[in-house]
Amino acid sequence: MYTRLLPGGHSGPAARGIAKVPIDIEVADPVMARLVMKFGGTSVANVDRIRNVARHVKREADAGHDVAVVVSAMSGKTNELVGWCREAAPLHDAREYDAVVASGEQVTAGLLAIVLQEMGIQARSWMGWQVPILTDGAHGVARITGIDGSGIIRHFEERKEVAVVAGFQGMHEPTRRISTLGRGGSDTSAVALTAAIGADRCDIYTDVDGVYTTDPRIVPHARRLDRVSFEEMLELASLGAKVLQVRSVELAMTQKVRTFVRSSFDDPLDPKPGTLICDEEDILENNVITGIAYSKDEAQITLRRVADKPGVAAAIFVPMAEANINVDMIIQVVSDDTTTTDITFTVGSADFERAKAILESSRDKIGFATLEGATDVVKVSAIGIGMRSHAGVAARAFQALAEKGINIRAITTSEIKFSVLIDSAYTELAVRTLHSLYGLDKPQ
Amino acid sequence: MYTRLLPGGHSGPAARGIAKVPIDIEVADPVMARLVMKFGGTSVANVDRIRNVARHVKREADAGHDVAVVVSAMSGKTNELVGWCREAAPLHDAREYDAVVASGEQVTAGLLAIVLQEMGIQARSWMGWQVPILTDGAHGVARITGIDGSGIIRHFEERKEVAVVAGFQGMHEPTRRISTLGRGGSDTSAVALTAAIGADRCDIYTDVDGVYTTDPRIVPHARRLDRVSFEEMLELASLGAKVLQVRSVELAMTQKVRTFVRSSFDDPLDPKPGTLICDEEDILENNVITGIAYSKDEAQITLRRVADKPGVAAAIFVPMAEANINVDMIIQVVSDDTTTTDITFTVGSADFERAKAILESSRDKIGFATLEGATDVVKVSAIGIGMRSHAGVAARAFQALAEKGINIRAITTSEIKFSVLIDSAYTELAVRTLHSLYGLDKPQ
Repeated sequence: MYTRLLPGGHSGPAARGIAKVPIDIEVADPVMARLVMKFGGTSVANVDRIRNVARHVKREADAGHDVAVVVSAMSGKTNELVGWCREAAPLHDAREYDAVVASGEQVTAGLLAIVLQEMGIQARSWMGWQVPILTDGAHGVARITGIDGSGIIRHFEERKEVAVVAGFQGMHEPTRRISTLGRGGSDTSAVALTAAIGADRCDIYTDVDGVYTTDPRIVPHARRLDRVSFEEMLELASLGAKVLQVRSVELAMTQKVRTFVRSSFDDPLDPKPGTLICDEEDILENNVITGIAYSKDEAQITLRRVADKPGVAAAIFVPMAEANINVDMIIQVVSDDTTTTDITFTVGSADFERAKAILESSRDKIGFATLEGATDVVKVSAIGIGMRSHAGVAARAFQALAEKGINIRAITTSEIKFSVLIDSAYTELAVRTLHSLYGLDKPQ
Repeated sequence: MYTRLLPGGHSGPAARGIAKVPIDIEVADPVMARLVMKFGGTSVANVDRIRNVARHVKREADAGHDVAVVVSAMSGKTNELVGWCREAAPLHDAREYDAVVASGEQVTAGLLAIVLQEMGIQARSWMGWQVPILTDGAHGVARITGIDGSGIIRHFEERKEVAVVAGFQGMHEPTRRISTLGRGGSDTSAVALTAAIGADRCDIYTDVDGVYTTDPRIVPHARRLDRVSFEEMLELASLGAKVLQVRSVELAMTQKVRTFVRSSFDDPLDPKPGTLICDEEDILENNVITGIAYSKDEAQITLRRVADKPGVAAAIFVPMAEANINVDMIIQVVSDDTTTTDITFTVGSADFERAKAILESSRDKIGFATLEGATDVVKVSAIGIGMRSHAGVAARAFQALAEKGINIRAITTSEIKFSVLIDSAYTELAVRTLHSLYGLDKPQ
């Protein structure tokens, strides 16, 4: 039984008619359920923490549920492995990189299976190629194309055995080489597996106990959200909230996978429910704004006195696209002399130097006077599905920021979010200002 | 094309009619050859050393040979992984242990492939399950049952690509679980692969430049041997010489695999030939004794005043066998009172405590007066196929040791070796005495 994960595919709970009924947020389901639990690197950083993870798994297994666990590499291990690959060669074969780096999750999967067995729970490890989890051939950033969940399901049925699945990895079927999904890919493994085995929910255990209205390090009284819609979570993840990987949220949304974000550091016998990522219609009360995110991985580039003629935007942005550089915000301002224009845009800070070099090498073709760049900028975003039905939400923010003396360098908006680019020195002030502006400080 | 590695199977060079022709010890074959190179943990301990290994591989690839490289885990890594398994549970599922521990070789294989590519050599890594190398289901100490070399050969033919194979690991076919061959198993992987792909020879690179007449740390003028017969090497490996794993020598012998022991620390552009392990008939001049080995992993147990009646030996040794404890030397001496006997035997020092516990628990059944044990003992052995045709070889040793005041606690002999158990304080003296007694000090 292969589950092909194509856009719009519905093989998860939705297909079983579950997602549309009102969702009970209680964790202990009254009837036997099938579920996927995912634990990240800090949750499995050493054998003691793996033992703690096993207690969470035992709770669910003891409740009679079929459990598949997806694990990341022990924290630090992936960096060690990546470091060796770089030392071996700065530019290395992504297939070999994948073989090296995927070993991290393999180790955790085996160790967790051992600990579970020691606690008297039937368990076995599954590598990506054993399940199999199939991917395309984009090694290092592979996308899951299909999962055969039948082996794991048979072990549920015949042996009531917990499946411990190595996250982040799969196999490219035509070549039978090991592939990895890229950083944070274990979240995606977990969501895809949930769909493939028809599990009722996917619990993503992390080092925080849910999704917050904003980063609690900046706003100590930030609130944990009980529910967030897929759309909002997608924006939050894209705009800097590190709690879930973007691709996993996309997949949860298209596959209708009920996903909880929870803490592995909770008491395993009395855990908090965490935050449920769910369909918009399962959220009864919508705030206008649900959360404030920020991203420091931004860099701003301004080209001064670019000739204001057709084709100039293409001359700038086509080479960026060809170099795989993502351009985010774009602003064009007519300059004093009406025949030229100033163009400002942002790229990821990791791409900053490369973007500048490409522009300098196309200087004659584009025809700009000066190139200015800044990396001390931050993008602050407000996200909420309520924006759809409320006018003037962003305008209030611009005013509030102006009152605090915060200069806005660029703005982008979409249906359910807006972002402003500001000097990074104002990050905390801006986040706190927006957090209280939209009433997120108040207890719900 | 599966090569089934069954006793007496001949699929290696012998089957191709090569092994019986006189063997030229020169390394640089005049014509294109196919060869397997194996590198152990200290040779791949870090990326710099892996780069050095790659230079050895490049030399052979540049000479036009088809090359398969078998690698161990970076030294220390296997111990780290084993340590985690033990921490997870003292008694752990061998299948999960294998999944965890096999990751070490996976990492080295990927890194070496990257370094080779960086040097401009076509290369790819192969995990045990990808080749596939098939094993039985004895996880942790699996035996290779077959290797399909066709994939690797196809890559030789189509792409002139070096195969970097993760040693020590395979796959149990019925369950598709990862298996490992036990400590030192990478030597066995290399020899089996040599047979499976019909390679002309197997070069085992290690941290010494060949097989010596004895441990050079004890006898500084110990000589490197140009050739050793399979039978002698098997005894040397069994009796304490750590240069090759016993199972790999057995396999080389039955599969007629020409095996060289060489140093990875030699200049990659001008390496020494090392020691050739080969058929007896390929060795022109036989010494009576070829080498002196010693093993400190011995423990002696003596049962005093055991009733001298039928069945008592079974009462002692059957429980040992059932507990998988290998008993080596056995001596029975009638004691003063003619109705009882003293029985002395040796076990591996790792099994010492367990063996004592088993005997104590069977005390009534066996009926002994006292149990004495000693771990400060060493087994010193002399090995040589010349012993077959020379009488009194061992007797000369007993006399020479007696003259040095070394007390012999036990003796065992076989067709081509004898061993004496002595106090460990006399190890060096005994090894040196035997080494000069049989003329091994003299230059050949």
